[in-house]
Amino acid sequence: MSLITPLRDERTLVLQLRDAISALIEEQGLKPGDQLPTEAELTRKFQISRPALREALKLLEQDGAIYVKHGKGRFVSAAAALQVERPITCFESVTDMMHKSGYRPINKVLSISEEVASGEAQEALRLSPGSRVIRLERLRMQGEEVLVYCLDYIPRSIISDRLYDIDWSGSLLDLLERHDMRPRMSTAIAASVMLPHDVSERNDLHDFGPAFLITETAFTPTGVPVVFAKDYHRGSRFSFSFVRK
Amino acid sequence: MSLITPLRDERTLVLQLRDAISALIEEQGLKPGDQLPTEAELTRKFQISRPALREALKLLEQDGAIYVKHGKGRFVSAAAALQVERPITCFESVTDMMHKSGYRPINKVLSISEEVASGEAQEALRLSPGSRVIRLERLRMQGEEVLVYCLDYIPRSIISDRLYDIDWSGSLLDLLERHDMRPRMSTAIAASVMLPHDVSERNDLHDFGPAFLITETAFTPTGVPVVFAKDYHRGSRFSFSFVRK
Repeated sequence: MSLITPLRDERTLVLQLRDAISALIEEQGLKPGDQLPTEAELTRKFQISRPALREALKLLEQDGAIYVKHGKGRFVSAAAALQVERPITCFESVTDMMHKSGYRPINKVLSISEEVASGEAQEALRLSPGSRVIRLERLRMQGEEVLVYCLDYIPRSIISDRLYDIDWSGSLLDLLERHDMRPRMSTAIAASVMLPHDVSERNDLHDFGPAFLITETAFTPTGVPVVFAKDYHRGSRFSFSFVRK
Repeated sequence: MSLITPLRDERTLVLQLRDAISALIEEQGLKPGDQLPTEAELTRKFQISRPALREALKLLEQDGAIYVKHGKGRFVSAAAALQVERPITCFESVTDMMHKSGYRPINKVLSISEEVASGEAQEALRLSPGSRVIRLERLRMQGEEVLVYCLDYIPRSIISDRLYDIDWSGSLLDLLERHDMRPRMSTAIAASVMLPHDVSERNDLHDFGPAFLITETAFTPTGVPVVFAKDYHRGSRFSFSFVRK
């Protein structure tokens, strides 16, 4: 067992301690389910007070790195090892998501228009009644195959240019960035649906099958909602991973 | 502006400081997008060193409570305010999920059997070739309507009882708890699919429509996989929320 120097830099004791306990777990080769040394052993080892130790252990518990069995002690958790690639909880553009899924799609703009925000978009974008939005309707195509049907609503007030002066086939997030309004996070709802009948009719998408619909409101870091989106992903082409705990 | 007592309890300075800055944000009524006081102001106010302050600010940044604009300073973020009810990232049983969605379903056991683990279940449950699993097939019904079709695989080795001595219509998690094997977390994949043809045929579920399929491996806190599940939720009845950031 390696020698650990007593901790002396009191400025950041709890955080140092948290990291030192993590390092100890690794050095001692403790595996998920193994018990941590006792509080007495840890205070002795690190030459610190029990309240400081308990705060550090609490941080580790909050991080999911250890867990408590009441009356039995603290144990190494497996939660840290539970990881998935590209979790659905990472905010990213549809374009980035598709690239990471191995697709190199082309965007096809179906329509771009300006209208009074409907109930759903008005509420999501926190607009006052009668506010105008830009409605953008696009297909993401891989060759001849439609992978995603995307409907986006953007408050008209944040885009100063005339609609037809803008290239809507590029990244919407990049466009918003140029207006200093790039979204960085969102709230989202996933559901399993069929494509709306009119969308399917107009675009000859009768073979689309079940769609993985993500209805999403994207916010700037300051909490301004800037995009309300409905993205219908072809069910046979996409799946989305996440960790639950 | 309220008077804040200089921080003196050095044991936990950074954590105290983090909480004190959070409290300051609230007391001063700072809103998302508002700038934080400067480092100089904060060190003066709290009578602490700049390195300690920076660690506390880093914790707040990691928590998503503040964000940095390079060259401009630190700002209050809206991420803390982004919350959804019942996020998909919370581990819970199908029964609990349905209760919170307002359903009071009845479980109907379609079949219970023991078999050699197939490729998918064997891999998810990390079983050696030839290992046996219990296969449980259930419907979650609200009145006459099937809400979820559930397929669960449990390693045979962790259930000591004879299959027919167990009431499989109850909670699977409670059953595993009685074997000291209650799962607390999972990795999951969501997709949009149609019900498998044979399931639809056998159970007269031709009207089920698009299903929200969650394929999930559930683990004990020590990282032992104890359930591999495929839950097909009737798409018209369920949706799942999450925050992306």
